[in-house]
Formats: sequence, structure tokens, C-alpha cells
Amino acid sequence: MSDKIVDFYTKREFLTAGQCNAEGELPLSAFVGRLIEVATAHANAADFGYARLIQHGCSWVLSRVSAEITRLPGINEWFELTTWVEDIGRLMTTRCFRMTDDEGSVFAEVRTAWCAINIESRRPADLRVLQPDISDYVNDRLRCPLAPAPKPRKVVDADRVTDYRFCYSDIDFNRHVNSCRYVALLLDSWDMDFFDRNRVQAFDIVFHHEAREGERARVIVRTEGNVAHTEIAGSEAPYCMCRLTFASR
Amino acid sequence: MSDKIVDFYTKREFLTAGQCNAEGELPLSAFVGRLIEVATAHANAADFGYARLIQHGCSWVLSRVSAEITRLPGINEWFELTTWVEDIGRLMTTRCFRMTDDEGSVFAEVRTAWCAINIESRRPADLRVLQPDISDYVNDRLRCPLAPAPKPRKVVDADRVTDYRFCYSDIDFNRHVNSCRYVALLLDSWDMDFFDRNRVQAFDIVFHHEAREGERARVIVRTEGNVAHTEIAGSEAPYCMCRLTFASR
Repeated sequence: MSDKIVDFYTKREFLTAGQCNAEGELPLSAFVGRLIEVATAHANAADFGYARLIQHGCSWVLSRVSAEITRLPGINEWFELTTWVEDIGRLMTTRCFRMTDDEGSVFAEVRTAWCAINIESRRPADLRVLQPDISDYVNDRLRCPLAPAPKPRKVVDADRVTDYRFCYSDIDFNRHVNSCRYVALLLDSWDMDFFDRNRVQAFDIVFHHEAREGERARVIVRTEGNVAHTEIAGSEAPYCMCRLTFASR
Repeated sequence: MSDKIVDFYTKREFLTAGQCNAEGELPLSAFVGRLIEVATAHANAADFGYARLIQHGCSWVLSRVSAEITRLPGINEWFELTTWVEDIGRLMTTRCFRMTDDEGSVFAEVRTAWCAINIESRRPADLRVLQPDISDYVNDRLRCPLAPAPKPRKVVDADRVTDYRFCYSDIDFNRHVNSCRYVALLLDSWDMDFFDRNRVQAFDIVFHHEAREGERARVIVRTEGNVAHTEIAGSEAPYCMCRLTFASR
């Protein structure tokens, strides 16, 4: 192994009022956005980022995010986000995150799954042929405490369905709907009064299919106690499925 | 004047891919967001920010943004945003911004108007009684080249109207719809194909009335050549009116 191995990456960040939601906290959609930012920064620093993958005709795609959240940063609060590669397989790599406050108390633990897709065929690439060898970057010292959980599944017996049509501002530089936008759209099945009384304690989202501008979607929710099974369904395939666990504030 | 006067403020920023729109640029809504962030940072540094105003029972409210844009920052580009107070009146202060690239070439020139409202009565406060005296911070050295323009007005003879209902993710820490959200909603009257061929060369937006969650709005557009007169209308009062000027890419 080279002495240039960077097997974790930490970014200290500040949350301004203008970035906060109605409860004065980092919105869950922006939480996912920060994960993507820090993962990108780490991959670039370790030279297996976009610039390197495109030489293989590939690009990273976020496939799943599982998170447990004690609390989220508030207005004018500093926080740290640390990420590392936990494992690498043939088609999928798992990357973990830990969000802490300035005293090191843990806000959130996160496990994500990523694949590299061939940008022409849109098929997953074999990660073992990538250079540099990502398995050199697997970090054994940092441990994610999240237990493996079943993947969120298609919602049956919905108790709420909302229609939506994706528009220009939902689209990002990849020319399809931004992952963070799905999260905001799912939460919009509830109102401010609900989130004043409840917070998201855990969520698990699987991204299936990329939505494009103008496509029509149905946001489907089935609630069982403090768990909501949700799905954003397209006319032909699901875009994402998500299990949300709420806790009283 | 004290030697602590900070009569301008500059922030250097980096634009990541994840923050970009379909054209790989800073979205116009995020452009407005960055203005608010830098204005807030300057006001805080000069001690006439939120913390000081709340001692007078007041809070800053953005009333108008007029901008001319040569181009916007792109993926992985550094840029600088400088702000200064241009003028202060009894009820309104004007604050200007200049966005430049790393070589000092100007991306955009912006003039904004702000009032301080009493958070109880929601009425504008007299800026002349505020301490510290903001007029000490007026910057005569930096000049905004934008010529005064008529305020955007109510749209008559619309050629397009879209219905919208404000939802949870549109609401910010002030408990009403975020200013940036109006800008995104206005642009959603066009599609990606339009913005692939055209860019916003100038815009002028006046914020009238604060929208709340669950309120229904109509996005009204009238196009005359390369100018679009737009309005987000509520059931009782307009939320904002905006003139957009487009240029071919």
C-alpha cells in the first residue's frame, strides 16, 4: 500500500439560519446532500472520484442510504462529518458516515451503498477492475454501529397517495432528479405541525430508477405506528422506496 | 467613526457538482441564497445583524433583488462574492453585491433593498434609530453600475398560469416560504430544453407578502420578446413579482 492512502475524510461545517428548516435544523434533504458532498470530496482526495472513474467510462451512483439520527445540527452550529469506505464488493461499495458536534457527541450514524455505472450502458461496472484499487482504502479502524436491516420494499395498502410532476428545478447536473429532492418530496407527505411534534429518528432509502423532467410520480405512504413505508412510483418503475421512523420531540 | 467599521465583506466560495443545475451552473435560486448568506455574514461582522436587531424587536427582511448576470459559476469553479451597503434611508437600506471569478472578471452585479420589520407588528421600523448607526457603514468607494429600473408590476394578460400549493419543504426557519423558493418556482414555468438554449441575463424581483405552508398560489407569466413578466399570486395578495430577461446561450 502506498503511503498516500487517505482512508477517511472529515469536513467541519457551519449551519447558517438560511439553510435551516421550519424547526431550525438541517433539513433531511440537505443532510443527504452533505453526505454526497463529503463522499465526493473523499473520493476526489483519494483519486477514485469522478475524474478518475470517467477514464473507465463510469460514474458513481448512490444506491442506498441508511441512517440513525440522534439529533440534527441547528442554527449557527458547527458540526463535523467523517466518512470512510467500509467494504468493497464486485458491484457495490459501502461507505459510512458519522456526524458529530464540536464536543464529539454523535448526531448521526450512516451507511450508504454506491455502485459505479457505465455512463453509456447505464449498467453497473465491476469495481474490482478500477484503478486505484479501492479495497486498499477500506478502513478497519472506524466502525459503523448500524445493524443490517431489510431493504425498504414496495408499499402495499397505501393510506395516502399524492401526485407530483418533476420540473426544471428538480433536475441536477446529471440531467435527472437529484437524490435530495426525493427526500424532500417524501417528507412533504406530512406538514409542519407534524414535524414540530416529531422528528425523523431513522430512515432507509433505496434509489431504483432515475426520474426525468416532466415525468409524473405518485408519492405513496403507509403508516404503521411510528414507521412510515413510502415510495415514489413512476408510471413504469419505482424511483425510490423509503422507510421512515419517527420519534416524538 | 470607530476603527472597527467593516464597510465591505468578501467571501470566496467553491461550487461543487451537487450544487449545480441541469446546465452545470449555480442555480438562480441558490444565487439568491448566496446573496442572503453573505449579507448576513457582513451584517453579523458589523454588528447590525439578527442578534443586534432583535434587541430592537426587529428582523431584516429582503424586499427586492435586481441583478445583471454575465454568466454564473460552473462545476468545480471558485468565485468571490463581495457586498457593501450603498445607501440607508428611513425605512429601506440598499446593499450591493459583485460576484467575480478568480481572475476578478465580473459574473454579476446586484442591488438589493432591505427593511427591518418589527417582529410583533410586522411593520417596517425606522432604520435611523438603530444602533450601531448603519449610515456609518455606507461604502462610497465601491460602485454598483446598475441603473435604477421600474419595479416589476402585477401581470396583466397572462399567457401562462400554473397552480401550486406551498408544502413543508418550502418553509424555512422564519416559518414562511423561503425567498429562494419563489425564484425556483418562477423558473419552473419553463423547461430544461428552454434553459439549455437560454440563460437569465437579468432579473428584478420584489417580495410583497410572506407565503405560508398550505397556501395556494398561481404562478403567472406574460412573455414579451426576451422579457418575461411574472408573478406569484396568493388568494388575497401577491407574494412576489419578477421581471426576467433572457439571452440566448
